[in-house]
Amino acid sequence: MSNRVTQHADRYLDDFAAGDSFQTGSHTLTEAEIADFARRFDPQPWHLDRDAAARGPFKAITASGWHTTALTMRLLVDSGVMRATGILGTGIDELRWRAPVFPNDTLHVEATVVSVERSAERPDRGRLRVRVETKNQRGEVVLSMIAILSMKRRAGQSHRDQRPNTV
Amino acid sequence: MSNRVTQHADRYLDDFAAGDSFQTGSHTLTEAEIADFARRFDPQPWHLDRDAAARGPFKAITASGWHTTALTMRLLVDSGVMRATGILGTGIDELRWRAPVFPNDTLHVEATVVSVERSAERPDRGRLRVRVETKNQRGEVVLSMIAILSMKRRAGQSHRDQRPNTV
Repeated sequence: MSNRVTQHADRYLDDFAAGDSFQTGSHTLTEAEIADFARRFDPQPWHLDRDAAARGPFKAITASGWHTTALTMRLLVDSGVMRATGILGTGIDELRWRAPVFPNDTLHVEATVVSVERSAERPDRGRLRVRVETKNQRGEVVLSMIAILSMKRRAGQSHRDQRPNTV
Repeated sequence: MSNRVTQHADRYLDDFAAGDSFQTGSHTLTEAEIADFARRFDPQPWHLDRDAAARGPFKAITASGWHTTALTMRLLVDSGVMRATGILGTGIDELRWRAPVFPNDTLHVEATVVSVERSAERPDRGRLRVRVETKNQRGEVVLSMIAILSMKRRAGQSHRDQRPNTV
């Protein structure tokens, strides 16, 4: 049932089916990037100060969890898989920071469509649920979440309605 | 049952009880800040380009939802209410971007402790669930979520164990 998505033209709800999976490129987070994000948005000492971090829960500088979510978004946008007219992230369920992210960790994102719901009230739109996992260079999941996306349907198109809409 | 928290010394799990509420300071998001975040983490045209945004779902530039979450974190950190030894955000449930954030919107955060769970296996730690709402200058909720925090207990302290641990 899995269908690895490789081409990324403009996409509509109709282009996704439950079980579709895709993988982004990767990014290596530097200590300077971690500190820059933390200074702006999460100025807690364990993201900024090696000595304070050494006394913290992970004994070393770690990235803000919100930095990891933002980088996850960047990797997804750069992958082109979300390219669509009027795609809209409406929410996230079950976001978990599963492992710390350290300077020089290289992260990529793997995602699988969990469900495709066509809207009864608004036939031009629908909702996609996507399981997102961000992994480090050792394949460890550092972040997982279910992204809820509202997407337009392709005008007049229903030829994929018979594809699975849940897994 | 509500207890507005006003003083912010170092805090432990024992210092929180279900129903405690607090409010942060505020921040006005400029269009330049919205574009700067979007360029780094969410380079979609409706965060960056007025013309593209005019054709998008909100007809104007809006902040990335991940910018709003990051700013929410900054407001919470600056409030001092999370100041603690070894506080750790482990996850988020039910994150919803409820209304768009436009340039020059002024946001603040209101938060209420939903539950305090002491750990049976690790008596030195426990888990706090906090309902977080980020509101704009008109009092509209732009973002809501349940933050799950792991916190240290105060050494040898249990005098607040009789306080409510759920609402």
